[in-house]
Amino acid sequence: MHYGYNIFKKFINGKLDQIKGLEYAASVVYWDMTTGAGGRGVKARSSALGILSSKVQELMVSEAFLNDLKTLEDNQHDLSTIDAQIIKEARYKYDRISKIPAEEYRTYAELTSEATVVWERAKNTNDFKMFEPYLKKIVAFKRKFADYFGYEDHPYDAHIEDFERGMTVAVLDTFFAELRKTVVPLVKAIAECEQPADDFLYLNYNADGQRMLANELLQTIGFDLNAGELKESEHPFTMGLAIDDVRLTTHYYTDNLTSAMFSTIHEGGHGIYEQNFSSEIAGTLLADGASAGLHESQSRLYENNLGRSASFWKHFYPKLQSTYMKQLDRVSLDLFLKAINKSVPSFIRVEADELTYPLHIMVRYELEKALVEGSLEVEALPKAWNEKMEAYLGIVPPTDKLGVLQDVHWSDGLFGYFPSYALGTAYAAQIQKALSSALDVDKCLEKGDMGPIKAWLNENIHQYGLTKTAVEIIEEATGEPFNASYYTEYLKSKYTKLYNL
Amino acid sequence: MHYGYNIFKKFINGKLDQIKGLEYAASVVYWDMTTGAGGRGVKARSSALGILSSKVQELMVSEAFLNDLKTLEDNQHDLSTIDAQIIKEARYKYDRISKIPAEEYRTYAELTSEATVVWERAKNTNDFKMFEPYLKKIVAFKRKFADYFGYEDHPYDAHIEDFERGMTVAVLDTFFAELRKTVVPLVKAIAECEQPADDFLYLNYNADGQRMLANELLQTIGFDLNAGELKESEHPFTMGLAIDDVRLTTHYYTDNLTSAMFSTIHEGGHGIYEQNFSSEIAGTLLADGASAGLHESQSRLYENNLGRSASFWKHFYPKLQSTYMKQLDRVSLDLFLKAINKSVPSFIRVEADELTYPLHIMVRYELEKALVEGSLEVEALPKAWNEKMEAYLGIVPPTDKLGVLQDVHWSDGLFGYFPSYALGTAYAAQIQKALSSALDVDKCLEKGDMGPIKAWLNENIHQYGLTKTAVEIIEEATGEPFNASYYTEYLKSKYTKLYNL
Repeated sequence: MHYGYNIFKKFINGKLDQIKGLEYAASVVYWDMTTGAGGRGVKARSSALGILSSKVQELMVSEAFLNDLKTLEDNQHDLSTIDAQIIKEARYKYDRISKIPAEEYRTYAELTSEATVVWERAKNTNDFKMFEPYLKKIVAFKRKFADYFGYEDHPYDAHIEDFERGMTVAVLDTFFAELRKTVVPLVKAIAECEQPADDFLYLNYNADGQRMLANELLQTIGFDLNAGELKESEHPFTMGLAIDDVRLTTHYYTDNLTSAMFSTIHEGGHGIYEQNFSSEIAGTLLADGASAGLHESQSRLYENNLGRSASFWKHFYPKLQSTYMKQLDRVSLDLFLKAINKSVPSFIRVEADELTYPLHIMVRYELEKALVEGSLEVEALPKAWNEKMEAYLGIVPPTDKLGVLQDVHWSDGLFGYFPSYALGTAYAAQIQKALSSALDVDKCLEKGDMGPIKAWLNENIHQYGLTKTAVEIIEEATGEPFNASYYTEYLKSKYTKLYNL
Repeated sequence: MHYGYNIFKKFINGKLDQIKGLEYAASVVYWDMTTGAGGRGVKARSSALGILSSKVQELMVSEAFLNDLKTLEDNQHDLSTIDAQIIKEARYKYDRISKIPAEEYRTYAELTSEATVVWERAKNTNDFKMFEPYLKKIVAFKRKFADYFGYEDHPYDAHIEDFERGMTVAVLDTFFAELRKTVVPLVKAIAECEQPADDFLYLNYNADGQRMLANELLQTIGFDLNAGELKESEHPFTMGLAIDDVRLTTHYYTDNLTSAMFSTIHEGGHGIYEQNFSSEIAGTLLADGASAGLHESQSRLYENNLGRSASFWKHFYPKLQSTYMKQLDRVSLDLFLKAINKSVPSFIRVEADELTYPLHIMVRYELEKALVEGSLEVEALPKAWNEKMEAYLGIVPPTDKLGVLQDVHWSDGLFGYFPSYALGTAYAAQIQKALSSALDVDKCLEKGDMGPIKAWLNENIHQYGLTKTAVEIIEEATGEPFNASYYTEYLKSKYTKLYNL
């Protein structure tokens, strides 16, 4: 018992805690940049961020790290269950990171760092050709990295692993096929329908009112504002520094009533996950979402399944209306609900509605897969993008800025991330179903008492962190393995009703 | 040329930049803590800060660091002047830090970290005995460290060096003797005088108005708000992250009109220094104040010599009055000037007025010196404190909370820092004299056009950073070596006039 424990303490304090400390610092620097300092001190900051990240890398791939890891693995019986899981997780991370030769990784990191800058310029000037050579190099790396990581069936599996452990192209192909079958016809059918009025959402809504409402929304859904905060940044995000320090951002647009509200609820869902890892794993390597998709399931569940429901607004709409009396006085709850659930095909993913959103993901999934497997080359990407947009959404982007150049992900090397966005929404539907069997969700929402909902999610989803996989958590929480039909059923039922199809 | 340059680049990118990056991150974490996060995520943050600091230590005292240093010193002729100075500065820092055995330093760092917490508790409960054993250990370390550092005449010299290179007890004894001779009788004389009314400074002044005024004051004195910002924290401070990212804090008290105003001008003076290192040294080891005293001279010059002058308020008082019409309508400029320059002996250093302030420093200077040389033991400290307060200020603190326990410095091991506060004010007087010979300061202040003042300070003080010593800068800027009589003359003339002595 003693030997294993001692080396464990040494490993934790000497290496894992160091990595955690450096990552903590990098996060705070990022927070500082996005919510405050902005364009000030850019050079000093870039240099600091680069150094923190290379220090983490250095600690992680060191021989000392590997030696400690091996010793601990040999003495696993001496460790507590949690400690053993920490070692397992450290090994998982070490194996991933060490599979890519350090020198090659450095070149790749420099490439993506430069590519992100070029991409932004290319996007702003609508010039895909400018970005093309960078993306080609990134794709070449991704193909090579897939071999380094290894895979059974499909090279893209090796990249999905970064975000959704154990998930494969085989499963995703089925998932997206089902989505295609359901959602594409739904979108087509809605295109024939009359659209509800929603012009009242785009009047002038002062930021102070929105700020107050955003904080009230967080309180309502159960995000603990004593263990976190909401600030403002260009793009909304969540940062879990510790279970008692979870930070969210939103962006207030005075000509848009709902953008900040729903992005706040969305980040609040992520935030509630981060605030509720069990105390046993808090502050350890295991205090993280089980997967990107499961994390996204929590934000989407709060934002869409709960946050766009009639029951939720039965409680919250009077408050909204009284805040913006002049603008909303004549807008009934029913009108408001129709407006916030309106579905219209559009070009930009992050602005897409709940129904068309997964089709945007499908476009990216199929293109990424093709790029990694080599059946598509970067030169042909814009055309392929537009064809898929037309096939799934019935619209063709007039420019690459509104098309293939819109997302930051590829310039940053984030291949394999996109599927998690769609998986998350699908997980959310399945979780919602289980949640609704366990308690009267609508009653909670109508009363504005979301405590029981949060308690159920804490118990069944949040507490585990990385001690269970997303696959296990979904199965145990809902009583069956991941099943996309809950999602397609949810969308069908919701939109059939909304549009009287 | 080539060899020296290459190893220099390696040293800079590989080690000095790493140290700088880690220190940058620690600063941002500290900023985040004091201006935002506060009590959230304390554990994660403490751990991160500890790790950053030990990483810096590790890099600095490494054999690799020393080897590079030696090689560069051997090839100095290959380096540019600035690069050679960077090497000299790195050597200076290395020599200081490496003189204390690493293990001992770690024990000491842990001690001071714990002692700061104990001190705070001891202060709040007015219990010196609680703090005593910690302070005893700290003093023992300081005595030992003085031997490690080495010194010619007095062991306290070894500690003053940390803040004021080359300054010694011999010089400071003379300086404080002169202060004692001038200021103690002045304070005694004023004790017999009628005090001006100042009750109007303590009415209700809303924070929004104060915030607006503080930012206007910064603009007036020439702090560049595009390359920095003003936020709020419990205790005001300045943090120079880069010349284009200098951050200040203040604290608004709604029952005190001037506290935030003068602390803002004070920090603004520090900030202007940090924003105006020459571009050649920006971002290097040399971008730092030449000494703690010279840094303080800039804050004090702006706060007191300029900021409490009649000419300054001739310009700014109408703005202040119109902001708080109700409270200041009947307060003439003359009354206001008398009130903000009122001098009354008080217990707390940070609340002391311009005249009594140096006496507070003198108390601490003499006690620190005695503690380090061993002529005073910690047990006898509270009594010695009270005796000196009575001798210099004519008052005896009724409690240790208002006496020996008031400052954080000793618990943090900051021995040798206090003299810089007084030296700074003395430097400021000498600099003011030179500045006044070079340009019409009063005219600038009255017009609210402080650009020429800032330009002169930039040229003569700020630009050099650590490329010159404070001693050199003072001498070159003012045409003679440091001479305390400018300070004593300034105080005598100012207070004789104010109180019609």
